[in-house]
Amino acid sequence: MSTSSTSLAPALNAADAQFEQSLERLFALLRIPSISTDPAYNGEVRKTAAHVHGELESLGFKVTTHTTPGHPIIVAKWDDAASDGPRALFYGHYDVQPVDPLELWDRDPFDPIVETRADGSKKIVARGAADDKGQIMTFIEACRACIQATGKLPIPITIIFEGEEESGSPSLPGFLDAHTDDLKADVALVCDTNMWDRDTPGITTRLRGMYGVEVTIEAADKDLHSGYFGGAARNPAHVLAKIIADLHDDDGAITLPGFYDGVAEVPDDIMAMWQQLDFSPEAFLGDVGLSVPAGEKGRSVLEQIWSRPTLEVNGITSGYTGEGFKTVLPAAASAKISCRLVKGQDPDAVRRSFEAFVTERLPADCKAVFKNKGAGPGIELDTTGPAFVAAQQALTDEWPKPAAFIGVGGSIPIVGDFQTRLGLESVLVGFGLGDDQIHSPNEKYELESYRKGIRSWVRILFALGETA
Amino acid sequence: MSTSSTSLAPALNAADAQFEQSLERLFALLRIPSISTDPAYNGEVRKTAAHVHGELESLGFKVTTHTTPGHPIIVAKWDDAASDGPRALFYGHYDVQPVDPLELWDRDPFDPIVETRADGSKKIVARGAADDKGQIMTFIEACRACIQATGKLPIPITIIFEGEEESGSPSLPGFLDAHTDDLKADVALVCDTNMWDRDTPGITTRLRGMYGVEVTIEAADKDLHSGYFGGAARNPAHVLAKIIADLHDDDGAITLPGFYDGVAEVPDDIMAMWQQLDFSPEAFLGDVGLSVPAGEKGRSVLEQIWSRPTLEVNGITSGYTGEGFKTVLPAAASAKISCRLVKGQDPDAVRRSFEAFVTERLPADCKAVFKNKGAGPGIELDTTGPAFVAAQQALTDEWPKPAAFIGVGGSIPIVGDFQTRLGLESVLVGFGLGDDQIHSPNEKYELESYRKGIRSWVRILFALGETA
Repeated sequence: MSTSSTSLAPALNAADAQFEQSLERLFALLRIPSISTDPAYNGEVRKTAAHVHGELESLGFKVTTHTTPGHPIIVAKWDDAASDGPRALFYGHYDVQPVDPLELWDRDPFDPIVETRADGSKKIVARGAADDKGQIMTFIEACRACIQATGKLPIPITIIFEGEEESGSPSLPGFLDAHTDDLKADVALVCDTNMWDRDTPGITTRLRGMYGVEVTIEAADKDLHSGYFGGAARNPAHVLAKIIADLHDDDGAITLPGFYDGVAEVPDDIMAMWQQLDFSPEAFLGDVGLSVPAGEKGRSVLEQIWSRPTLEVNGITSGYTGEGFKTVLPAAASAKISCRLVKGQDPDAVRRSFEAFVTERLPADCKAVFKNKGAGPGIELDTTGPAFVAAQQALTDEWPKPAAFIGVGGSIPIVGDFQTRLGLESVLVGFGLGDDQIHSPNEKYELESYRKGIRSWVRILFALGETA
Repeated sequence: MSTSSTSLAPALNAADAQFEQSLERLFALLRIPSISTDPAYNGEVRKTAAHVHGELESLGFKVTTHTTPGHPIIVAKWDDAASDGPRALFYGHYDVQPVDPLELWDRDPFDPIVETRADGSKKIVARGAADDKGQIMTFIEACRACIQATGKLPIPITIIFEGEEESGSPSLPGFLDAHTDDLKADVALVCDTNMWDRDTPGITTRLRGMYGVEVTIEAADKDLHSGYFGGAARNPAHVLAKIIADLHDDDGAITLPGFYDGVAEVPDDIMAMWQQLDFSPEAFLGDVGLSVPAGEKGRSVLEQIWSRPTLEVNGITSGYTGEGFKTVLPAAASAKISCRLVKGQDPDAVRRSFEAFVTERLPADCKAVFKNKGAGPGIELDTTGPAFVAAQQALTDEWPKPAAFIGVGGSIPIVGDFQTRLGLESVLVGFGLGDDQIHSPNEKYELESYRKGIRSWVRILFALGETA
């Protein structure tokens, strides 16, 4: 038996023994409102970075907080490992989504609490509990347990934490390019995804990419009185509505020319695996008050969210939106729109097609202003590497059911950046659940996700140590 | 020569002699931010009512401030008149529009100032300067001048001021019904309209009515993560956009079934009069940064805004509209929409048609919630009565060019209420100009409108005294 496996049990015991303190440390992190997308919270984001920096330093990592044009990037290194195993680059983000509409939260989003359900299961409720503070703390606390039990980590580790993930990670790609040597590793570990279900851990191998844009249609040079000008002056809200309406056909397909170029059908064997997963479209939609799949006709829900590109309006604003009524003709109308892209689509071609689509539809006196909000391609990972195999086994050892290779509808652009900029494949392991309400009011993280998540990382680190 | 006409010159002189003080009194009123549509300003609206109450009482009116479910209604009466002339019921409103976007104002909207242009002309800049505080003060100051010069008013007068005009006048119709005896009069005078141009006073005889509604399309029970749900869950922003897009055809006509029922073509003689007015569509649109009429094809701009009904989106909001980006699928999408109606259209039929139009277009899992924001029919006034003739002559005496009977694109629902509830025809005289930017940033009122407006009312009151 190798040194690694002898030490696994003490490390797991150390994790269990200090779980209450691990929870306290997560709460301390959740209490800082690190909303990266709203400049009003810049100070809180910096405070969060300093807090995380301190945690890692106290564990014995060599930590550097790098300033960027946006929010700080933290790099922490551990070189004195128990084996010559592969160096892992662990990625997570310490920023969180905005909390509006605040009135839909049952309590202060930044006053975390553990709530117990009727069935005895417990959840941690707070903004960022699942996305991504709870997840990054599973890794930090796993490192702590290993260090406490053995004085070392099982493998050499570099940690990179960013604070701009929820605002499109504008600083990260340039940072990777500028620090390729410092970030050199054999495999990337990313903790920002879900399990398949409560009992089944998942390794995510398919991710949708993203093209985000805010388009503003401008007409008159100010809001106009709809009585004096209504009927004679161009209303940009109508123009925007027409453009949005034109973006999908009656069968739910996206009408942007060339949008589906390069999109492959899912291979039959993968489709068969998905059909075997315990998945109920009715329950999936029913959980959020819906009943009928709304997207492309003839595609299953899993197919839609894992393998098909989408185009969705995330927000619209135009004219008077306050209390009461104001009979203006708006001077402008604006929509935030994002496309989820799949492997094979070129984000830049999608951007060009979108901009041409809008521009062609502008009537006289209107102009369109485009603000790009980041773009990244869809990804499918090669699951045959030793790190995938080791992680799959470690997860299977920890949880009731074997780990599954799954897809995810969301985008994690870092995975593409690690491929292209650092030459690294990412193993995406996370302990979120589909009902965690990330990006929504009353976000939660299962207490069990946190507890077994920490234990899972302990197991994965030791398993990776044995791949040396 | 009658007593009336002997006293006209001293009254005009009194108006001129105290014009500086009249301006000070207008400024005092403009400084109180009486935004009726925003509950945060309720206290300021009450303060404004108390201020106006005090002004009228100090002139010798018998004043009552009536509480309503919304903002107060002020009724002031003067019975001791210099003649047996007709009793006039004067209407105006002391509330103002909201000021957003505040950043487009050159200065504090509630810190009024007189600015001098390069050509020496002057303007009063403040929210409410033209709509409607400047206008109601022309009448109050005219009364003051008459009282100072003769100790009396030329005719018996009742004044009614409301504080809810900019939020749809919800309390006024019921108030009129409950006070028909107290408000009994021979003619109504309404000061909330424009002149034809700087030199040409106008009496407005055509007004468009209004149907206003806020429609909200609801789908999921919360905002969803567009990665996890995008493509599979119904996006109400798309549904709303499609409905808005469907409301107009490619020729700019409104597609609501029955919308144009009862809408008559403008008679040839009226159309001929309009064609003789000094009006440039290019300048009208050019003033606000536009160039091409956008409404119904084949209709002139004046025809569109005076004689044709419209349907315009006044505001849209859905999903995330703050700084930055948030990739949600919105739970709901909402639009404030208003129709300008013309004589012959039934506002209630339009409401029913709109609600049916929306409901028919709802896909599965969506529902529509309608909040009505007031409705009133379009109006054409009979201009052959003695009050019209007297007012036309009085205005013609004051201004460089003869007074014209004109139309207006906006809605003044009180005119319909006076017709149906009090049996009164309204003479609509106002001194605003098309470029006053009411409802927009940097609202202004010409200093000359204020000065000659006061003098105009002095003349009209004496002229009405002679119709006895």
